[in-house]
Amino acid sequence: MALRVYNTLSRRKEEFRPLHEGFVGIYVCGPTVYDHPHIGHAKSYISFDVVVRYLRHLGYRVRYVQNITDVGHLTDNADQGEDKIEKRAAAERLEPMELVEIYMRSYFEDMDALGNLRPDISPRASGHIPEQIELVKVLLDKGYAYEVGGSVYFSVEKFGGYGKLSGRRFQEQWEAVRIAPNPEKRHPADFALWKRAEPGHILRWPSPWGWGYPGWHLECSAMSMKYLGETLDIHGGGMENIFPHHECEIAQSEAATGKPFVRYWMHNNMVTVEGTKMGKSLGNFVTIKEALKSYSPMALRLFVLGSHYRSPVDYTEEAMRAAQRGWERLNRAVQMVKERIRYAPDGPEDRELSEAVRRCERDFSEAMDDDFNTPGALGALFELTREVLAGLESGTPSRTTLKKVEDLYSRLAGGVLGFRFEEEGGGREEELLDLLVEVRAELRRAKNWELADRIRERLRELGIALEDRPEGTVWRRYS
Amino acid sequence: MALRVYNTLSRRKEEFRPLHEGFVGIYVCGPTVYDHPHIGHAKSYISFDVVVRYLRHLGYRVRYVQNITDVGHLTDNADQGEDKIEKRAAAERLEPMELVEIYMRSYFEDMDALGNLRPDISPRASGHIPEQIELVKVLLDKGYAYEVGGSVYFSVEKFGGYGKLSGRRFQEQWEAVRIAPNPEKRHPADFALWKRAEPGHILRWPSPWGWGYPGWHLECSAMSMKYLGETLDIHGGGMENIFPHHECEIAQSEAATGKPFVRYWMHNNMVTVEGTKMGKSLGNFVTIKEALKSYSPMALRLFVLGSHYRSPVDYTEEAMRAAQRGWERLNRAVQMVKERIRYAPDGPEDRELSEAVRRCERDFSEAMDDDFNTPGALGALFELTREVLAGLESGTPSRTTLKKVEDLYSRLAGGVLGFRFEEEGGGREEELLDLLVEVRAELRRAKNWELADRIRERLRELGIALEDRPEGTVWRRYS
Repeated sequence: MALRVYNTLSRRKEEFRPLHEGFVGIYVCGPTVYDHPHIGHAKSYISFDVVVRYLRHLGYRVRYVQNITDVGHLTDNADQGEDKIEKRAAAERLEPMELVEIYMRSYFEDMDALGNLRPDISPRASGHIPEQIELVKVLLDKGYAYEVGGSVYFSVEKFGGYGKLSGRRFQEQWEAVRIAPNPEKRHPADFALWKRAEPGHILRWPSPWGWGYPGWHLECSAMSMKYLGETLDIHGGGMENIFPHHECEIAQSEAATGKPFVRYWMHNNMVTVEGTKMGKSLGNFVTIKEALKSYSPMALRLFVLGSHYRSPVDYTEEAMRAAQRGWERLNRAVQMVKERIRYAPDGPEDRELSEAVRRCERDFSEAMDDDFNTPGALGALFELTREVLAGLESGTPSRTTLKKVEDLYSRLAGGVLGFRFEEEGGGREEELLDLLVEVRAELRRAKNWELADRIRERLRELGIALEDRPEGTVWRRYS
Repeated sequence: MALRVYNTLSRRKEEFRPLHEGFVGIYVCGPTVYDHPHIGHAKSYISFDVVVRYLRHLGYRVRYVQNITDVGHLTDNADQGEDKIEKRAAAERLEPMELVEIYMRSYFEDMDALGNLRPDISPRASGHIPEQIELVKVLLDKGYAYEVGGSVYFSVEKFGGYGKLSGRRFQEQWEAVRIAPNPEKRHPADFALWKRAEPGHILRWPSPWGWGYPGWHLECSAMSMKYLGETLDIHGGGMENIFPHHECEIAQSEAATGKPFVRYWMHNNMVTVEGTKMGKSLGNFVTIKEALKSYSPMALRLFVLGSHYRSPVDYTEEAMRAAQRGWERLNRAVQMVKERIRYAPDGPEDRELSEAVRRCERDFSEAMDDDFNTPGALGALFELTREVLAGLESGTPSRTTLKKVEDLYSRLAGGVLGFRFEEEGGGREEELLDLLVEVRAELRRAKNWELADRIRERLRELGIALEDRPEGTVWRRYS
């Protein structure tokens, strides 16, 4: 079966075919770095990380571009209000670019913790002013834009395709804006490509229209086309960006190049908290750093991948506890397989477990090919895990079989879904445990049951179980 | 005593007085990110990290700007040759900005490992093209520059101060270049502010002089003045950059603003390997990542700080082993003090040790005030460490005294010199060790000397010593 992707533009799943066979160019709208990332960012960027990972797994050479917005994103979507970066920098008494460094670092720190691969290119809006100015010039030359008093606006009436992504018509768009129309705009739905800098505005650059700064939508068109060409294979982002952000990107890009801007538009749904939309004003804003105080990064990853990227997911304590337990179960199974490989018998393949591996691989691929159905893919992995744990409990699978299981976990759970399996602790811990097991064996030989049992009890308190077997005692971590 | 800084411009130590009382703006030439950083970078950036840390320790509010060169640094200093980024990107078959992401990340990874604080702003040359173009325009307007066929050159004869940093005169400079003069230049020592892009050159932008790219020197003037104002308090870099790089920075900045560009020029010396200059062509190029395979990051930090920043330092196995031992000694002392605080007796200050703390603090400050004499500062810390270890061995210093020692290590060795003291291992290790000590005590009570001794022996092999004391057995790590 071939990969099928839901395209927001056509509102249906389509077979995935990139522009150039074997290569995929993907652009995902990155964060505006004026605060620590929240769990909505976790959903968005884990989802697209898995898209990139799966495309690579299928053999594509992928170039993944994700921007950093460090200028031009205003507090109000309708080209008014303050620059978010400048506003926060003033509040923190920092140079805007100091603020950007702090939150850009915080962003990558959290993404690294969650196991997301770094984008191949992370272009910054403030670092691509000439490219944005050039694009505005082209749009002016072609008659799609007009200048008023140092600002340049895109004329939506000139571009026939405006509204094709969101399905919104002008009247609706205007109503959606719900603010007093800007008198400089010829049509209320027109949007700013370049804004003149009012006095006191710090983030500004010289342009043919005077000192100013780029409109928010412009950066994504300029940077995506610079690094991926005039037609992108995939453009991703949150659903809340369909309108106006992505609608405007299409308009300005296609008006400038005369070519289709994006082949597949992909949009992820949002994270709610206890059933309500997350928002700073609502006081239910959860940062990734806060979430990671209570849950492990891989549990948060499992929580996100446990729902489809196009479905909303509700962040609750119960759901996160379930994700934490699920992650620990998966991680423990992987660790147990690794440990058992050390002393597993040579021998032929175990039929049942080998069959389970094949089934898992097939179900995983089918799910992922169906518009990156990660809940289905996880289901296949947990089904396998159930059989692996049963197999380990009831028998001694051969090394060959266990290696197949390990390989599958590594490729699919690790490589595609991005889970990072790790033994806890490390360092000398294992050697100390081996020594305790050895001392306890001596104590049992000497019939010092009391002290031997005390060791077992104390280890249990530390989350380590001792299993006495004919071939000797084995320790394993259960927490 | 006040801080005195050696100023390359005056060739003597001067009392440090920033332009605005209480504030320091410092700019340090950052790496050209086309390869993994080497131990020469370690010396440069650890040295300036300690400068920044000490200034903050003295109470200054410091803004630390360190650029990332991702365009314009040519393989040949005399404005000829290929762009280093573009050349390497072609070799690795990557988009230049993909290459930049890889090596920029590698750079920060290594700097983080070595304990360097991140700069407050890390501006990228490619992200400041408009600022560079503006600077060229000013220099053309003021008659310090001329355009030839799409390139713009700075006229060194027009700027009276050219040569004041390096002490080189034009004739020498020309000879130093030792290549055929560029026929476009009016004087062989003139340097490029902007270069026209030849066909096939990828890293290029539109400008009033056609498509091109900035000269290497230009970025540092444009970015430092953007973020720190027209006069910087400190400009740092490697000695090899005095000429032509910093000489050109002064010329273009002062010609443009008419103000002194930098109050204190600071230059660090180089790292040699087994007595010879390090170079790729010489095959003795040591990356930080390679060095960290054999030595701990803090040992490399100690190695660098063990010589003055203006002195060369020779990287040899012997020197690194000594640094590793020194670091372990220091770290062990800090860990021992922390452990002993747990069960130290209450009581008055120990006179001798308290005196040693005061002496260390005084000697440390005197050394650092003398142009950041880190070998002297380290000497003071090791002198204290000698007395601390002796004090711990011979007696039981009071908690009050030990807390003073801990505080000093934390402020001076940690805060100022940037050492990161860490217990090895972690996780459950300590609890397992406590359990082993407890089991061994039981075995001794039961006169099972053989098994009790086996525990001691095996722990010794793992680098853990058991000390039997009247109040009980205590374990400590010695490796």
